[in-house]
Amino acid sequence: MPDLNALLNPRTIAIIGASPDETRLRGMLPAVMLTHPYQGKIFPVSRSHEEIMGHQAYSSIAGVPEPVELAILAIPSRFVADELGRCGEAGVKAALIVTSGFAEESGECGKAVQQELAEIARAYDMAVLGPNSEGFANTALSIAATFSPAMMAPSKPMLPPWHVEGRVAVVAQSGAVGFSFFDVGREKELPFRYVVTTGNEACLEIFDLVDFMLDEGKTDIFLLFLEDVKSPQKFKAVAEKALRMGKPLIAAKLGRSQAAVRAAASHTGALAGRYETYAAMFAHYGITIGDSAEQMVDIANTFLANLDRLPSGRRIGISTGSGGAGAWMADACAGEGLEVPELDADARAEIDAHLPTYGTSQNPVDGTAQAIREIGYAELARLVSLAPNIDGLVMVASARKKNGFERERDNFFKLGQSLEKPIACWSYTLPHETSVELFAEAGLPLLTNMRNCARSMAALADYRIARDGALDASSAAPEPNTNRAKAEKLVARSGPVLCEYEARAVLALYGIGEAPGGLAKSADEAVAIAAEAGRAVALKIQSPDIPHKSDAGGVALGLEGADAVRDGYDRIITAAMASHPDAEPRGVLVERMAPAGVEFILGVNRDPTFGPMLLAGFGGIHVEIWKDTALAPVPLSQFSAKALIGTLKGARILEGLRGAPPSDVDALLETIIALSQFATDFADEVAEIDLNPVIVHARGEGVSIVDALIVKQR
Amino acid sequence: MPDLNALLNPRTIAIIGASPDETRLRGMLPAVMLTHPYQGKIFPVSRSHEEIMGHQAYSSIAGVPEPVELAILAIPSRFVADELGRCGEAGVKAALIVTSGFAEESGECGKAVQQELAEIARAYDMAVLGPNSEGFANTALSIAATFSPAMMAPSKPMLPPWHVEGRVAVVAQSGAVGFSFFDVGREKELPFRYVVTTGNEACLEIFDLVDFMLDEGKTDIFLLFLEDVKSPQKFKAVAEKALRMGKPLIAAKLGRSQAAVRAAASHTGALAGRYETYAAMFAHYGITIGDSAEQMVDIANTFLANLDRLPSGRRIGISTGSGGAGAWMADACAGEGLEVPELDADARAEIDAHLPTYGTSQNPVDGTAQAIREIGYAELARLVSLAPNIDGLVMVASARKKNGFERERDNFFKLGQSLEKPIACWSYTLPHETSVELFAEAGLPLLTNMRNCARSMAALADYRIARDGALDASSAAPEPNTNRAKAEKLVARSGPVLCEYEARAVLALYGIGEAPGGLAKSADEAVAIAAEAGRAVALKIQSPDIPHKSDAGGVALGLEGADAVRDGYDRIITAAMASHPDAEPRGVLVERMAPAGVEFILGVNRDPTFGPMLLAGFGGIHVEIWKDTALAPVPLSQFSAKALIGTLKGARILEGLRGAPPSDVDALLETIIALSQFATDFADEVAEIDLNPVIVHARGEGVSIVDALIVKQR
Repeated sequence: MPDLNALLNPRTIAIIGASPDETRLRGMLPAVMLTHPYQGKIFPVSRSHEEIMGHQAYSSIAGVPEPVELAILAIPSRFVADELGRCGEAGVKAALIVTSGFAEESGECGKAVQQELAEIARAYDMAVLGPNSEGFANTALSIAATFSPAMMAPSKPMLPPWHVEGRVAVVAQSGAVGFSFFDVGREKELPFRYVVTTGNEACLEIFDLVDFMLDEGKTDIFLLFLEDVKSPQKFKAVAEKALRMGKPLIAAKLGRSQAAVRAAASHTGALAGRYETYAAMFAHYGITIGDSAEQMVDIANTFLANLDRLPSGRRIGISTGSGGAGAWMADACAGEGLEVPELDADARAEIDAHLPTYGTSQNPVDGTAQAIREIGYAELARLVSLAPNIDGLVMVASARKKNGFERERDNFFKLGQSLEKPIACWSYTLPHETSVELFAEAGLPLLTNMRNCARSMAALADYRIARDGALDASSAAPEPNTNRAKAEKLVARSGPVLCEYEARAVLALYGIGEAPGGLAKSADEAVAIAAEAGRAVALKIQSPDIPHKSDAGGVALGLEGADAVRDGYDRIITAAMASHPDAEPRGVLVERMAPAGVEFILGVNRDPTFGPMLLAGFGGIHVEIWKDTALAPVPLSQFSAKALIGTLKGARILEGLRGAPPSDVDALLETIIALSQFATDFADEVAEIDLNPVIVHARGEGVSIVDALIVKQR
Repeated sequence: MPDLNALLNPRTIAIIGASPDETRLRGMLPAVMLTHPYQGKIFPVSRSHEEIMGHQAYSSIAGVPEPVELAILAIPSRFVADELGRCGEAGVKAALIVTSGFAEESGECGKAVQQELAEIARAYDMAVLGPNSEGFANTALSIAATFSPAMMAPSKPMLPPWHVEGRVAVVAQSGAVGFSFFDVGREKELPFRYVVTTGNEACLEIFDLVDFMLDEGKTDIFLLFLEDVKSPQKFKAVAEKALRMGKPLIAAKLGRSQAAVRAAASHTGALAGRYETYAAMFAHYGITIGDSAEQMVDIANTFLANLDRLPSGRRIGISTGSGGAGAWMADACAGEGLEVPELDADARAEIDAHLPTYGTSQNPVDGTAQAIREIGYAELARLVSLAPNIDGLVMVASARKKNGFERERDNFFKLGQSLEKPIACWSYTLPHETSVELFAEAGLPLLTNMRNCARSMAALADYRIARDGALDASSAAPEPNTNRAKAEKLVARSGPVLCEYEARAVLALYGIGEAPGGLAKSADEAVAIAAEAGRAVALKIQSPDIPHKSDAGGVALGLEGADAVRDGYDRIITAAMASHPDAEPRGVLVERMAPAGVEFILGVNRDPTFGPMLLAGFGGIHVEIWKDTALAPVPLSQFSAKALIGTLKGARILEGLRGAPPSDVDALLETIIALSQFATDFADEVAEIDLNPVIVHARGEGVSIVDALIVKQR
């Protein structure tokens, strides 16, 4: 592994292609760097200038008189590969390539050159960022190796002065977006450590950087902006590591829209992949999804103040000096799935002692201007936090007055330190700088966006659940299946598509449904099998060439008696052959009709990035109209299988609606876990599995898989 | 009607209870007022001071030497009523009561005093704002009659200097929230005309003020914050007037959560009412719902710039200098239901001429830093706007650099004036003041929140549809029903609950379903009626005491032949009597089984504020799990009935899914319109109507109402 320390914490930096012309990127970059008090050495490399912005320039990297840790390449794309090689030769340990025009170019040429860059980096074991990167910043060393306008002419130091060290990192594929996080977040006093923009990721990817920063141990919160994930295994390992370490990842992923998918491809050559799969992966690893830079910065601010006091539930207490603003916040909380319960009676009595008759302690606790004047915002918030039936606190205030909170300074510091429940503060007016600083110093997140405030509290609760889950015993992967070898033989022996009776035979080895009924090759055989079944039967044509049996007229249901079965047999053979004249029918599956239950679907599909993903959902109209399905990577633990079912909007159906009995959820979970294990074991062989429908019977009566299909990989 | 002009545009103002103590509201108010250059006269009225903040004080309102147009009352609540009377006697035309402690007090006393205030106001024909109001501001006259911190120590004039006149009004029940709109919006250069906070609304309500401002003709956009609506007829009339005049209302309504409903009651004594009803009313009148002050301000800014060029669709073109930011915006647009189509080929060719090879014209159009340097942001945006297959434009830029757009100044002004499609601009970095001012002067909305930017464009599109609808002929109310008198007789004659056969007989007069089948009083009669029906029949017990027939065992379906009908009759009579021993059965309804179709529900419920509201939705599991219902005020025009059905998420079901035929939507619409007419005509007599289920048959085959119930008002 190359030395990322040389990249991010270099003592010497060469700028290859540096120019004094500040209207061009190669001039803007050194100009921006030099406005920050970096203590290391900077060596411009230029063929046309002997001095650039007061620094002696050298005509080649080889000519720089000291060992260079980081080289920044700001030269036309056609020269980049050779120059990178020369850097390697010169012993440079890391490189940042800001030049554009590689994989994001139309045509194949750019991709090929990018490939070459990767090989050169590997050959010299160099840590290479880019190409098409907007650079990076390191607040600890005051490095702004970028031409980003967000780092130009800074009016404030990179790090708010009361923070000894930065604790937040931005790692983003897009340079403009990456630095916009800094721009928006610095204004809100967020203590950044790193801002790194990875561009086309020819070598280093986002999760290489996150991994390095986790190991380095200085960064507590990560803001990520992804166009794609190039190395899914790295993503999984690093996301899991961050979750276990309790270092939240807050991410946005491009590609909810087709337009963004198109754009990502042309922008950094990224293949955006299915957004739904990413959302499922994020949920699985407790990664908070943000919808804008402001929101992500606000969530980071809230996490930062509350990492040691994550909420154990979703019940929020709201303290306010304005009834209208407090009530609006209650609505915003409800909109984010939080609860705002009436406070318990003892807590209310404590609070009531300080309220005028036109205030209220119910929750939101409206102290009115009067109580605020008397006991103050901080004390009111503290009293609300003591109510046993809340898990977190939102303080609503107006922070607009200069030094408006000064008389409460000590109380706010105490509040920030001693609160045992998480807190977020919302100012419904634009806060004065003095308030922003006071809150930041006191370790209290001061947000100006009501909705983000509610969203942040919900994100804390979600993160707590995901993290508890990751550390919980029920999150262990399922046991290896003892029938794996047998199943492998069956799969190897079969054709490219396993139709129902084949698929079910394989799946039954893993405990997924029961083995199929009898396969009849003639009407007589069908009658005999039906007689043995002893009640109404279903007949289903079996052929790998007829995946949609019902559409082909290949299914007959509820047949009783020899005549009905015989008729049914003839009818479906005739219909199926009429619709699929070239199909090779293997016979007709004869089975007892499945008893009633809730219609479910289970499936496995290979995501091009993340491999097999398990899909679960309610069948019929639910999937058709409501898309009420949930997705997760395999294998699934008991914990994640439960969580998966819990995210379905129709989950209540399984409890029994309109007089229906509760469903056998345990059997459903077992089936899901076993299917996830099967999908994991056969990740290389199987492209797709469809179990549709799966009938979930009443509690204690299991599930029936009524149709199944397995498609092998080509 | 009292003189609102005296309230909002007074030439003389008395401050009753004024004090020099700026730590108290009665001292803050004059202090805030005097920091603004109001040109009228201010008369403090005080019993304890002869002079306040440089102004001579008077010991009573009667002692003020000139006619007072507006009196501001900042005295303890127990003195307010008498003082208001004295103001009336003294010929004061308008009053603002900032004192708290009226209807928002626990107990009845405060409400009674508030009632008294209303009577005094009426007696003297005074325009009275409050009590419990935080006051108001009028930027045209530099009046800040408020103690709001948002109006203290202003660093800028109330109105941005390049706006000759304010065009935006805030009218809010909550004072803190009302002035927070100003605080947030002034920073974004929004040209406010009025900020009015109505408090407890003892006399003047939000829509009185909106109505005055519409008539005055100076205000183009309204930002409203509602806790409740006290006069629904006024709301309807003013909302309709605003829509027809093309003056958008952007509103937030408290009460999505139970906590907010509790809070509103204790805060201004408001009865928040059902949020869903409000949302339906807002949709009906084209009122945009906002989720935060920032969002509402951003939407207002976007409307302001585009009132004359509302979009004719939801297709957005995006121009950008950053690929990542542009793609993220595309995702945000998709999230708000907008489309970002690939631009048409000719437009692309025009644009491609200016792009480097690593840019793209597909949409988002990524000019990259290079094209921005060469042709500029404004020109790139203009080129994108010319694509025929987009309806609106989002320009993505970084506005962070001081004077960063100066060289494009003329182009931006041209863009603001000559664009024929609406535009919103998003800066992904915090904009420099110079950029904020340039864009505001050029008439281009510059937003910093990506999501709000997308939301704003969607709001323009929604508003255009609602307004076109209001002006469209198909929005005419339905014709009066000629059978109204007959129906009135039937309703008058019946008991408090009309069971199915009675309800359907009444409804059939309005063309809502067919008249019911035969009512059998004995098994023999049932057999005879069934024989005449000539195919399988349903039997249904009829009794006003058994509203849930199926639960009571009072329904038998699909009976064929005399024996089955006779058995069925006996069975349901026995079961129904067993479950409801005291019920008075009127007989058993015998009807042909309704043919298959889509299960729908229709209903009418009285909202305590707005009266009868019509509910439509898909039946069964759809309503149970998905709450897929839509609500609208009655009567419904053809246009609004169609719009109502269109808002159902399952609307696609009516097109025919999974091989089902398309449904008879025309018949469904006719039924809905007729039901809405019935609900209007019987608004005073009928409390509730339930048609559940209504079976919508295949196109051309109408609908069947399979069960019906009407509950009269008590």
